[in-house]
Amino acid sequence: MTPDVVALLRAELGDRVDTSPAALESARADKSGHASAGSPLAVVHAASVDDVRAVLRIATATRTPVVPRGAGTGLAGGANTGRGEISLSLRGMDRLVEVRPDDLLAVVEPGILNAELNALLEPHGVWWAPDPASRAISTVGGNIATGAGGLLCAKYGVVRDAVLGVDLVLADGRLLHLGHRSVKGVTGLDLTSLVIGSEGILGVVVGATLKLRRLVAGERVTLTALFDDVRTAAVASAAVTASGIQPAIMELMDATSLAAVHRLLSMPAPPAGAAQLTIQTDGPVAADEARAIADVLRGAGGQVAVAVDDAEGETLLAVRRALHPAMETLGTTLIEDVSVPRSALPAMFDAIARIERRFGLNIPTVAHAGDGNLHPNFVFDGPDVPAVVWDAAEELFRAALDLGGTLTGEHGVGVLKRRWLADELGDDQWRLQRDIARVFDPLGILNPGKVFAI
Amino acid sequence: MTPDVVALLRAELGDRVDTSPAALESARADKSGHASAGSPLAVVHAASVDDVRAVLRIATATRTPVVPRGAGTGLAGGANTGRGEISLSLRGMDRLVEVRPDDLLAVVEPGILNAELNALLEPHGVWWAPDPASRAISTVGGNIATGAGGLLCAKYGVVRDAVLGVDLVLADGRLLHLGHRSVKGVTGLDLTSLVIGSEGILGVVVGATLKLRRLVAGERVTLTALFDDVRTAAVASAAVTASGIQPAIMELMDATSLAAVHRLLSMPAPPAGAAQLTIQTDGPVAADEARAIADVLRGAGGQVAVAVDDAEGETLLAVRRALHPAMETLGTTLIEDVSVPRSALPAMFDAIARIERRFGLNIPTVAHAGDGNLHPNFVFDGPDVPAVVWDAAEELFRAALDLGGTLTGEHGVGVLKRRWLADELGDDQWRLQRDIARVFDPLGILNPGKVFAI
Repeated sequence: MTPDVVALLRAELGDRVDTSPAALESARADKSGHASAGSPLAVVHAASVDDVRAVLRIATATRTPVVPRGAGTGLAGGANTGRGEISLSLRGMDRLVEVRPDDLLAVVEPGILNAELNALLEPHGVWWAPDPASRAISTVGGNIATGAGGLLCAKYGVVRDAVLGVDLVLADGRLLHLGHRSVKGVTGLDLTSLVIGSEGILGVVVGATLKLRRLVAGERVTLTALFDDVRTAAVASAAVTASGIQPAIMELMDATSLAAVHRLLSMPAPPAGAAQLTIQTDGPVAADEARAIADVLRGAGGQVAVAVDDAEGETLLAVRRALHPAMETLGTTLIEDVSVPRSALPAMFDAIARIERRFGLNIPTVAHAGDGNLHPNFVFDGPDVPAVVWDAAEELFRAALDLGGTLTGEHGVGVLKRRWLADELGDDQWRLQRDIARVFDPLGILNPGKVFAI
Repeated sequence: MTPDVVALLRAELGDRVDTSPAALESARADKSGHASAGSPLAVVHAASVDDVRAVLRIATATRTPVVPRGAGTGLAGGANTGRGEISLSLRGMDRLVEVRPDDLLAVVEPGILNAELNALLEPHGVWWAPDPASRAISTVGGNIATGAGGLLCAKYGVVRDAVLGVDLVLADGRLLHLGHRSVKGVTGLDLTSLVIGSEGILGVVVGATLKLRRLVAGERVTLTALFDDVRTAAVASAAVTASGIQPAIMELMDATSLAAVHRLLSMPAPPAGAAQLTIQTDGPVAADEARAIADVLRGAGGQVAVAVDDAEGETLLAVRRALHPAMETLGTTLIEDVSVPRSALPAMFDAIARIERRFGLNIPTVAHAGDGNLHPNFVFDGPDVPAVVWDAAEELFRAALDLGGTLTGEHGVGVLKRRWLADELGDDQWRLQRDIARVFDPLGILNPGKVFAI
């Protein structure tokens, strides 16, 4: 059957069907480091909605699995494509179709990069708020598929808060227009929200109507606070949240990650064991808020440094942004993504310390402390995740769930977390979710094996 | 079978099963004025999650339809209960279970009134933002079931933006916990969002974890602007949105509604044909924003009056709040609920004027102009909606859809709009939505005949 599928694709899509070894190889993996077994049949570089529909009609007719793909920057293996599967790339569909500053909306194709979109929006005085750390290299369609978060979420929301509608091609090639262009709308079930974060198992997002914000007026003030240890820093971040002031950004780096970044950037080593909060306020009263936050931080034992201007603020933030390259200098990294209520951050760091001791591991951790989302990094040698790391990760997930949290705040389930999905959802909800997916995709050809283990 | 069901309910729920004629009669209708045919079997006043589960187990065993009900303030007939059906009232489950200002969340039972909840939250320095006009009399569970909006939505969001999780009892009595307590979370499909606005067809909401906001610091400034006609007022409101300033409230009243309220409140009659915008800004730069908005309004031909203090501001807003009682003085009212992109407000008022002329009707209209949600009121004599009104409403829906909008912004589909649902969704999406509902409720016993016509 295999040669037939490629021939059918070629007959309809010509040279947009790519079977070069390099293309097939790169479609096997995302940025998680995890790769699928075997190589896909083909990578199809879709150039239009009609291309996507054609691929799905052929896929349905031949019962061939299809894995939608943006820029391949996911961290859960959700776009990894394996033997017998078609990798359907949306990256080439990257147009900004419409900007309406007066209605605070934009219509886009899915393959546009997040940062590229925002660069195009800026002259109109508007922006799309979701800001995953990958924003320079990830697509809006991928952001929607994963329900991406980022640094600014506590103040400006996640993807779920920033999409009015999506155009979705179903497994059989039918095209649906979900949502609308108005701010309000409650006609029937909210399928737009259901598609956000659904990781390609319900359909292929071929367009989106995004909810924009005005560019934030006023200044930005950036400050850092150094603490003796990570627990004190976590308590301080919870105290900032509890004080009622909402920073735009509040990032926490533990001792290992801070030291690794300082090494990478050739900065002087931080004091042993020290952890750091990096905070940014914005808007018309940003300076007042920064002063009040600095007081809270000092009261919690922090050594505070306030940037004198935007350039110095960027330098302070650059330390946080260098985290991923710094981790790569230590070895292969498995980036986890648990999220807990903000007041539980200290307890979650206690749990991480306990897991480090129990399993004899070092787990450098950064957190979007403003919203309670932690990224513990497991670092190891070689390409494969050792069993002890999975055991420790499982304990990490359990700790997050016990604290009222979730095992993935913004990266998604993909293949890497599917075996723990039922632990969070419960068996009844797990089955209900899978049955809902089957309504969209009765043959189970859309991104099979992702999210649900079967 | 009928006596058996009531006997089964009584055996498990005792005197919480109410078959008094008054209870049965009041369960037939909501605030839409529309009532179901016939009387329900019983009204069950649930006092606990276990009560709800017991009712649904009996309902499933006996194939008896169940209609969940909060305070019965809906405007689409969604809670109307008819012959052979059980009305399941959640109104008695009205506890505020937990408030966490540090995590900006609250856990509630569904029967708590919106305003009652906010009164309890205020001493903690937090609030729940959704503010339907019915907030003093509608329940949080009902707000969730309808995906309610309100006046503050453009700035502070709708219900969809303000719920972290819901506890849902399925048609067969199983209890699911959807969502989580953390700000971020993308584990599997977003069933919490799917339940919001689902009007009781997926399950019964028996608890919710709400996302709160800090009370807004700073002052409130209220102003009104009088315009020669409604179109000029609509153009002015779109100009305010386009100016980039986000008011907390921006309400528009057309000439007929403004005159009716002035009569009701014994105020001097407004100039013939005059329409009015009522705007409130809040936050640390509220006064600056109000001044800038006043300039925009004057530039658009408005005669602006700024309240000198909060008390005068409340008086100005009271005019808008008196709309529904004022309409009731004119006759029986069918309140419509179309929503369009904000820039399309003038075009939508043009469409309403065209429909008034074509059908020989007067359609007094108010709008949440800040978010593009209009409430055209059809006023007539007697209890039944005349055919000409439905014909005009159908044209109104079509006009809203043509402008990129929706036929219901915040009231829901219920029974009153179900015959137009497929016009907005398209047949494919309509069937998909119905099939998803069937996954939750295979026997079709949950609020049957609502949302979907079959």
